[in-house]
Amino acid sequence: MNTRPGGQDGDMGFHVDSEAGRLRRVILHRPDLELKRLTPSNKDALLFDDVLWVRRARAEHDGFADVLRDRGVTVHLFGDLLAEALAVPAARNLVLDRVFDEKEYGPLATDHLRDAFEAMAAGELAEALVGGMTKREFLDEHPEPMSVRFHVMDLDDFLLRPLPNHLFTRDTSAWIYDGVSINAMRWPARQRETVHFEAIYRHHPLFRDEDFHVWSEGQADYPSTIEGGDVLVIGNGAVLIGMSERTTPQAVEMLAHKLFAAGSATTIVALDMPKRRALMHLDTVMTMVDGDIFTQYAGLGMLRSYTIEPGVGDKELKVTDHPPEHMHRAIAAALGLSEIRVLTATQDVHAAEREQWDDGCNVLAVEPGVVVAYERNATTNTHLRKQGIEVIEIPGSELGRGRGGPRCMSCPVQRDPVR
Amino acid sequence: MNTRPGGQDGDMGFHVDSEAGRLRRVILHRPDLELKRLTPSNKDALLFDDVLWVRRARAEHDGFADVLRDRGVTVHLFGDLLAEALAVPAARNLVLDRVFDEKEYGPLATDHLRDAFEAMAAGELAEALVGGMTKREFLDEHPEPMSVRFHVMDLDDFLLRPLPNHLFTRDTSAWIYDGVSINAMRWPARQRETVHFEAIYRHHPLFRDEDFHVWSEGQADYPSTIEGGDVLVIGNGAVLIGMSERTTPQAVEMLAHKLFAAGSATTIVALDMPKRRALMHLDTVMTMVDGDIFTQYAGLGMLRSYTIEPGVGDKELKVTDHPPEHMHRAIAAALGLSEIRVLTATQDVHAAEREQWDDGCNVLAVEPGVVVAYERNATTNTHLRKQGIEVIEIPGSELGRGRGGPRCMSCPVQRDPVR
Amino acid sequence: MNTRPGGQDGDMGFHVDSEAGRLRRVILHRPDLELKRLTPSNKDALLFDDVLWVRRARAEHDGFADVLRDRGVTVHLFGDLLAEALAVPAARNLVLDRVFDEKEYGPLATDHLRDAFEAMAAGELAEALVGGMTKREFLDEHPEPMSVRFHVMDLDDFLLRPLPNHLFTRDTSAWIYDGVSINAMRWPARQRETVHFEAIYRHHPLFRDEDFHVWSEGQADYPSTIEGGDVLVIGNGAVLIGMSERTTPQAVEMLAHKLFAAGSATTIVALDMPKRRALMHLDTVMTMVDGDIFTQYAGLGMLRSYTIEPGVGDKELKVTDHPPEHMHRAIAAALGLSEIRVLTATQDVHAAEREQWDDGCNVLAVEPGVVVAYERNATTNTHLRKQGIEVIEIPGSELGRGRGGPRCMSCPVQRDPVR
Amino acid sequence: MNTRPGGQDGDMGFHVDSEAGRLRRVILHRPDLELKRLTPSNKDALLFDDVLWVRRARAEHDGFADVLRDRGVTVHLFGDLLAEALAVPAARNLVLDRVFDEKEYGPLATDHLRDAFEAMAAGELAEALVGGMTKREFLDEHPEPMSVRFHVMDLDDFLLRPLPNHLFTRDTSAWIYDGVSINAMRWPARQRETVHFEAIYRHHPLFRDEDFHVWSEGQADYPSTIEGGDVLVIGNGAVLIGMSERTTPQAVEMLAHKLFAAGSATTIVALDMPKRRALMHLDTVMTMVDGDIFTQYAGLGMLRSYTIEPGVGDKELKVTDHPPEHMHRAIAAALGLSEIRVLTATQDVHAAEREQWDDGCNVLAVEPGVVVAYERNATTNTHLRKQGIEVIEIPGSELGRGRGGPRCMSCPVQRDPVR
Repeated sequence: MNTRPGGQDGDMGFHVDSEAGRLRRVILHRPDLELKRLTPSNKDALLFDDVLWVRRARAEHDGFADVLRDRGVTVHLFGDLLAEALAVPAARNLVLDRVFDEKEYGPLATDHLRDAFEAMAAGELAEALVGGMTKREFLDEHPEPMSVRFHVMDLDDFLLRPLPNHLFTRDTSAWIYDGVSINAMRWPARQRETVHFEAIYRHHPLFRDEDFHVWSEGQADYPSTIEGGDVLVIGNGAVLIGMSERTTPQAVEMLAHKLFAAGSATTIVALDMPKRRALMHLDTVMTMVDGDIFTQYAGLGMLRSYTIEPGVGDKELKVTDHPPEHMHRAIAAALGLSEIRVLTATQDVHAAEREQWDDGCNVLAVEPGVVVAYERNATTNTHLRKQGIEVIEIPGSELGRGRGGPRCMSCPVQRDPVR
Repeated sequence: MNTRPGGQDGDMGFHVDSEAGRLRRVILHRPDLELKRLTPSNKDALLFDDVLWVRRARAEHDGFADVLRDRGVTVHLFGDLLAEALAVPAARNLVLDRVFDEKEYGPLATDHLRDAFEAMAAGELAEALVGGMTKREFLDEHPEPMSVRFHVMDLDDFLLRPLPNHLFTRDTSAWIYDGVSINAMRWPARQRETVHFEAIYRHHPLFRDEDFHVWSEGQADYPSTIEGGDVLVIGNGAVLIGMSERTTPQAVEMLAHKLFAAGSATTIVALDMPKRRALMHLDTVMTMVDGDIFTQYAGLGMLRSYTIEPGVGDKELKVTDHPPEHMHRAIAAALGLSEIRVLTATQDVHAAEREQWDDGCNVLAVEPGVVVAYERNATTNTHLRKQGIEVIEIPGSELGRGRGGPRCMSCPVQRDPVR
Repeated sequence: MNTRPGGQDGDMGFHVDSEAGRLRRVILHRPDLELKRLTPSNKDALLFDDVLWVRRARAEHDGFADVLRDRGVTVHLFGDLLAEALAVPAARNLVLDRVFDEKEYGPLATDHLRDAFEAMAAGELAEALVGGMTKREFLDEHPEPMSVRFHVMDLDDFLLRPLPNHLFTRDTSAWIYDGVSINAMRWPARQRETVHFEAIYRHHPLFRDEDFHVWSEGQADYPSTIEGGDVLVIGNGAVLIGMSERTTPQAVEMLAHKLFAAGSATTIVALDMPKRRALMHLDTVMTMVDGDIFTQYAGLGMLRSYTIEPGVGDKELKVTDHPPEHMHRAIAAALGLSEIRVLTATQDVHAAEREQWDDGCNVLAVEPGVVVAYERNATTNTHLRKQGIEVIEIPGSELGRGRGGPRCMSCPVQRDPVR
Repeated sequence: MNTRPGGQDGDMGFHVDSEAGRLRRVILHRPDLELKRLTPSNKDALLFDDVLWVRRARAEHDGFADVLRDRGVTVHLFGDLLAEALAVPAARNLVLDRVFDEKEYGPLATDHLRDAFEAMAAGELAEALVGGMTKREFLDEHPEPMSVRFHVMDLDDFLLRPLPNHLFTRDTSAWIYDGVSINAMRWPARQRETVHFEAIYRHHPLFRDEDFHVWSEGQADYPSTIEGGDVLVIGNGAVLIGMSERTTPQAVEMLAHKLFAAGSATTIVALDMPKRRALMHLDTVMTMVDGDIFTQYAGLGMLRSYTIEPGVGDKELKVTDHPPEHMHRAIAAALGLSEIRVLTATQDVHAAEREQWDDGCNVLAVEPGVVVAYERNATTNTHLRKQGIEVIEIPGSELGRGRGGPRCMSCPVQRDPVR
């Protein structure tokens, strides 16, 4: 991960230049042990609305990956990337240093625990880091340390908590033009995800020698949090960002500085979203299906927006406020267009609320005008088709229970501009 | 619905003599409009954990009905029964009198609304009663009454609330030996279901001329509530009842009086269940798979129990308390057995909690040793098979989101004793 | 309680002709055992925000009663009225029939329990009905019945739940001109209060021979609920009613019919209030301090309103809808005035929210321009004084934790019109 | 704040050698603006159960301080200490650096905001840091920065949140023998308190030249949190610590290392408390009233405990687990006694729960056998008196709403051993 000293770039470089241009490479995460950890008791803390049938969820996810491969997209599986990265000692140290912290495990148990994980093969370690480990599982293989922190745990408590939200690779890191933002995450249930992406981007052979910018520094930026589901790389040097329950205005300002300083972007449009779970990320209510076409949830309404551009001085930005009714106009202006097209299916409020919940708007474009969507959102999908969009449907009876659709479950690392 | 003046009885009479004897006739409800009404905002009040994809839920339900028909079970669909009953004026009056109450709709709107529903054809009326109606839908067809009660509603508010829990036909009425308990339901979201079953059992041609007892009087018994999911007709004149969040001890006592007075049963074993939603009904943690075999959730533990038998005087009952450790012994004694067999798959607490949540224990026996179960509960199903039980699997990715499995979704109206 | 066959009326009759005319007689409830029952675990279900120090609360309440007596108001204590009424066999039967219902206590315990209460002296019975009784307390005096309903209870569970909200005598019954509405209450924690007022108004010597109307029929009207805190008798034959979390539009319509049929009122203005606990009753955000002057919470805003007047036919009413901005105009019109004066202290939103919470608006007028208020709401009280209102302050450090001020804690039974 | 290089010590040095020895100096916080910030909407997030009448709360607090002064205790007011510390440039920088972080306020507004606070006089700054500031208040004095972070705020949002829990000076720092633990706090609502105590102990003239140890490093230790309410300096070189919702086992282990390395303590007994708000700190359920006498909440029961002592190696500790029934024995052993005396008033479970909630156990000893308690807890206070304890009562109708009594509201900085 060089800080872009010049370099070859070429077709194989990592960059995401749009939301709807040809998608070339993407990171997905095939669900596994971590989803089996979800129970009625812990699911809310782990940000899921129901427990999933993992075997079926995995089959649905395999189908999603196949659809992308059929469209010529190279699919990297996060689990493989993590295991390969952990074979590199520096990556392993980076992760274990972050995980086995005395402030979490106490002076008496930390080294003992870390030694046990240090001894694991890379694949086994990757699985444990993502899938978590109970005290009972640990004791099946290792002696018990003399530690109050360890003794007070029940046998079925998680010594290392699972990370079921790795499924949503969109959020933890986000590629924006010729760089990546490794994100500080809002909720404790996801914060440990970030270091895994740091390890991959810094140490995995696929990335470590490539030239790209790094727009943010990982969990250390907390409470300046930003999540990829709120970030749309809309093209024309513009970025559309939802300031949501999870993405803060200060993170938007920080990102603006970095992007403008590098010359990688020239405009950010920030939307003042309602701060609630149902609208957790911008891409749950609004995504892009072509260079000037968006699909939007009927119940979203119009939002106050802010256009951020480079200012005159070094550390300055120019911020322009827009009233709610100018939201679409502000987006169009950032794209250099006189207007954008916004598609919203006509349906009653109850049906619209259902389809938003089921990620009806959370589509993933694989090329301009061609999107992947959950089959269950029949009304939205039919509407898009009538408007000339090609919709490739995938099942999501299990996958969707974490409130995330095709866009949430994918992290594009290489995508062309729209034209 | 005669109060059993004697009569022919015969093979076609309605009676349920066991939990696991040959199942001959059952009432199911094919999900429809009422499930489309579920939204993220209203689902909790309507007792669902997630919104369902109705088309898929219906397909899954059709598969369930087919499995039963393949096994020789006659399936009556609740929607058909209700529509046929509503063709009878007395049934229609019974229902509309109960629904269109001035205490609910006010003196200014009630007659106006009732007239509009009175004018509907039976099928249309049945759909509206179960599927509900918004103010907007009403105004599409009818003028607006001058009524404060009506004016204060928003256009998308429900004028008549939907009844999505009709899916769980097990609860609203429960056949116990040669009679039926038409139940007072615990939560407002389900209370309007009861009158539909009153209309069917009293006025539908299938039932009205048959001889059977009626063990309870419908919603008028509130707060003495009982729900069918808590009632297991275990055979040998015994009934096993869970006193849960929804089934009260006073209802158990009242039922005991009726059953004993008619000579239809001789023993009730009542279990003192934890009062919480996850264990909402006894059949979510314990069901019967053969005449002396139960499947039980590992996390249930042992419960205090009470054996109720006829007392000496007319209004008296004999109540014997048992400590938790005697729970299985008390059940066996009621069955006239020295012991019962209880099957519980060995798995870690997280996995066991997941499968209970997903109705792993909520199986429906179609004959001794043959049960219908959701395919997602692989561990429990495998365990049952290893113990010699035949398990017929059905999908439930959508159906299961209301927290109900094959037993919850079926109301047996004719079932043989086990041998 | 005759249904007003004509009669003497005279000075001593019961009637409430205004909100701010001279107050002559009032029912208060001196807090006792029932408030000692409040614990951190049960307080929310019992509608209190914190536990109270009962000895102090009683002292504060005594001070409140003294302030009223000093102003020439006759104070009737609810506890005395109830005990005196229960000395009348018919009253005792009315109450015990309602409380000891087999649907609540089951066929095995009900008679046994009722007999034990039947044997109590009137004062002791009144205390038990209001203060509740645990299973342990019952067993200290009586043998245990053989009853599942009774056996499943823990020793410290309430056999009879306490009624701490009797403190707020305003709500359970409400005098409107020459009659009283004995109210169906919204929440289970208060529903048993109603029968106590039925017993008093029907059978207590003070009331039973007086002539007055009865506007509603008690808890049997449920779900057509109305609570006195939402009812303001503003004078000129008009009534102002808040349709709140607890008062329904159907109850307003029913009341309109009764009032208009008797010729006791000619106009109702109904306000469409937000349905949430903080604004539980209209009198927590708006009360009257003089014949044309209101005090109103800054955060209430303007509400949609409905003027209800007699219609042409017998069962008809005329309903006129007003947009929010006409709220004050609609009230003025009902009073026959061109405008009303509305007093709202200027303070920041946080301070205003605090004073509303602490019942800053919940004042009780003892004569035109003279009100009783909690001393803690210094800003509101100072503002009223600057506007020429005399404010008599009482302490409420403990009393106020149930979210009710002087108006909530008083039920006027005799009050003059304003002039 | 020297790291105790030897030094004079003497009578005036800071040290706390017991829970019940003569109390000589204490830090209290007189409530002010920060409590006026509490509203029904924000109180839960700010960890209060109700809003307080600040003028009365202040009067109650003044009475508490007077009681201590009457007993010869020197009272330092936190507000004064903070203002005096902030007059020192290094203290001011320490605090403002921590508060005005770009990760919180964004690159565009941070300097602008910090400059505004930098310009304040020390007293004004102390008040703003504790009392918070709304956007509106800021704009009354200063121009608006061009900042998205600032623009998205509503006028009445808190630019700087208030810290109402400073009232409970016990928690944020805790003196243990000859040193102080400056604590990492569990909940966001209190985390900003810590830097204020860092500034005082490091830079205030009263402390900066004194010799004492510092046992922990402030908020940087998070998530290894510990709060003073869980720490009892029971004497004989022993410390009793509750591992609660807010105090972690890892923090206990870290503290053990520091205390043992300095030779300041030789034993820690750690209790495994239930993790819930009602029992938020050990001192809400158990405090010390004399050298071998504790007062304990009836509902606490017995807890698993762990005795921690120095181990053989440098970084090692010896941990001994005890079953619940040995809890009192483990405490006695740490005190070098054969047994301790535990006082618990006999009362029914409801009354006991009420008095625990009202801080009945949260007494502050001023000398052996003499404690300060809230007057409202009559049963507990009477019981203590009957056992020979002198109880000085103070009012707490307002103060107690934050769930904290005399011990919670005091931070002893100098206290003798018991004998």
